[in-house]
Amino acid sequence: MSEIELIKLAKNNSVNKVVETPLLSNEKINQIIGKNVLIKAECLQVTGSFKFRGAWSALSYLKSKNKILDGVVAYSSGNHAQGIAAAAKAHKIPAIIVMPRDAPSMKIENTLDYGAEIFFYDRMKEVREDIGERIAKEKNLQLIRPYDDPLVIAGQGTCGLEIAAQAKALGIKEAEVLVCCGGGGLSAGIALALEEFAPSFYVRTCEPKFFDDTARSLRSGKREKNSKLVQSICDAILTPTPGEVTFPILKRLAGHGLVASDDQVLRAMKCLYENFKLVAEPGGAVALAAALFSSQRLEKENIIVVVSGGNVDSNIFAQALSKKSITR
Amino acid sequence: MSEIELIKLAKNNSVNKVVETPLLSNEKINQIIGKNVLIKAECLQVTGSFKFRGAWSALSYLKSKNKILDGVVAYSSGNHAQGIAAAAKAHKIPAIIVMPRDAPSMKIENTLDYGAEIFFYDRMKEVREDIGERIAKEKNLQLIRPYDDPLVIAGQGTCGLEIAAQAKALGIKEAEVLVCCGGGGLSAGIALALEEFAPSFYVRTCEPKFFDDTARSLRSGKREKNSKLVQSICDAILTPTPGEVTFPILKRLAGHGLVASDDQVLRAMKCLYENFKLVAEPGGAVALAAALFSSQRLEKENIIVVVSGGNVDSNIFAQALSKKSITR
Repeated sequence: MSEIELIKLAKNNSVNKVVETPLLSNEKINQIIGKNVLIKAECLQVTGSFKFRGAWSALSYLKSKNKILDGVVAYSSGNHAQGIAAAAKAHKIPAIIVMPRDAPSMKIENTLDYGAEIFFYDRMKEVREDIGERIAKEKNLQLIRPYDDPLVIAGQGTCGLEIAAQAKALGIKEAEVLVCCGGGGLSAGIALALEEFAPSFYVRTCEPKFFDDTARSLRSGKREKNSKLVQSICDAILTPTPGEVTFPILKRLAGHGLVASDDQVLRAMKCLYENFKLVAEPGGAVALAAALFSSQRLEKENIIVVVSGGNVDSNIFAQALSKKSITR
Repeated sequence: MSEIELIKLAKNNSVNKVVETPLLSNEKINQIIGKNVLIKAECLQVTGSFKFRGAWSALSYLKSKNKILDGVVAYSSGNHAQGIAAAAKAHKIPAIIVMPRDAPSMKIENTLDYGAEIFFYDRMKEVREDIGERIAKEKNLQLIRPYDDPLVIAGQGTCGLEIAAQAKALGIKEAEVLVCCGGGGLSAGIALALEEFAPSFYVRTCEPKFFDDTARSLRSGKREKNSKLVQSICDAILTPTPGEVTFPILKRLAGHGLVASDDQVLRAMKCLYENFKLVAEPGGAVALAAALFSSQRLEKENIIVVVSGGNVDSNIFAQALSKKSITR
């Protein structure tokens, strides 16, 4: 099946399961950025992030083909974890999730609450891909990768279908779509959907400072790596390099990448709190941070900003609340 | 025009102006309450509260009838203020808002940002209705009351139309609809819409402890008053007595009223933050607080909870964040 056919199938499978998240606007933010800005509130998705789309897509498809084996295994910093755990619970499938020991408490607790088993690893010393593949083999489980999986990318693509339809209903003909980017699953999925249903829209990846592997790769044309020595509060999107499956899609379809610092991300979280009444996690606010602080790099009149998740521990959110308001 | 005709007209006038807010659910919260709970996220409305619906309805209607005079005046604790200010700005109408000096900073700042002029008064010593009427007369302005106005009630009723349609799409046949209640504009508007479009649904008003005038009035059958001596963090809904226009509607259509304490409200705000990624203000979280802490008083299997607003200063939100999680 082609990429776009997989996205359409994922959409059909997602009816009444996946939230069609709203596209929100705020006049004050439009004035500050100097553009017509629309926020795609994926933090309102089931499990609090877009990852449920991909998880639901993959599990629904695999179950229909009897390819679940004795259950599923996934590795994740926490959002794919919750997505897989929730989708597995709904499908009554056992799930093991490989998660870093320093993942946010909320993500760990929610993953356990959905009934998944967690296998903790050390993010600095171990390679999660190896652990996931080993567990899959040992326990006869289907491995669901967080982004390098056509079924997962197709699920994330349903977000792009919605963007195309919602923007069309508002009479928007051209737009750039800013998407928070780790491995590139969401941005690649959205890019594929837009290519078919809104060909004058295009994706721009948004990454934390020092984790701009996708922006650099889009410039050089090959998959660049991040240094292992830096840190960021954007736990959801700290990937070492663009995905093997996702990068060729982005290379073909995405515009120049954008970058935001941790401080800018916290201020974007405060902006979402104040002006949109949305709770965003750091990794989910990177695209808005890029729009707010790199507005001179925006190209179109209409800017669609995907707020990709909202699973954030209270202490980090309190940090964002203490930041200066963007509107004052 | 009949009440329901006014609601339908308000709906027609609101296309692409008023947000059709989503109905969200969370499995964990369903388990805790033991019901199928749906959150109507009115905090995502333009200006951060349902009040924009009523303001837009009133101003659109009055403008179409050339009844704006030299502008509009409104009295409000802060949400009707922002609603009127934003609607007036869009219609290019001057607006004066009578607001208590101790209103939350965010509400004051936003009202000013929308270009309205604020007239401050002392909530403990002055009567806002008198001030509003005096200014209206002196300056030849149309007074838009926060709830005792059929046009405002009709606007709030559009929220009820959406609830009826969204619940129907989910196959829900019966439900009780929990609505945060101050003067009763939102609950009365929703009740009228449900009477016509979902007659097996009914409204239950939710109020802060010590401000349960509507609950007591529904029991006694006549408009009861609150003591002036108590305080609550639920600034948006601290009205002295049910509305003259709204109460007869509620008396005819609403079920028993529910009540929640300030501490329960803060925990409901934490719950909305953690599980729904929504920012609610205290007055906007009262209905969820009632559902969480008075679940034994709920009657139906399906509970629709209106989260009516999200305009909350950071220091109060930080208080909510520090509360114990409802799910732990």
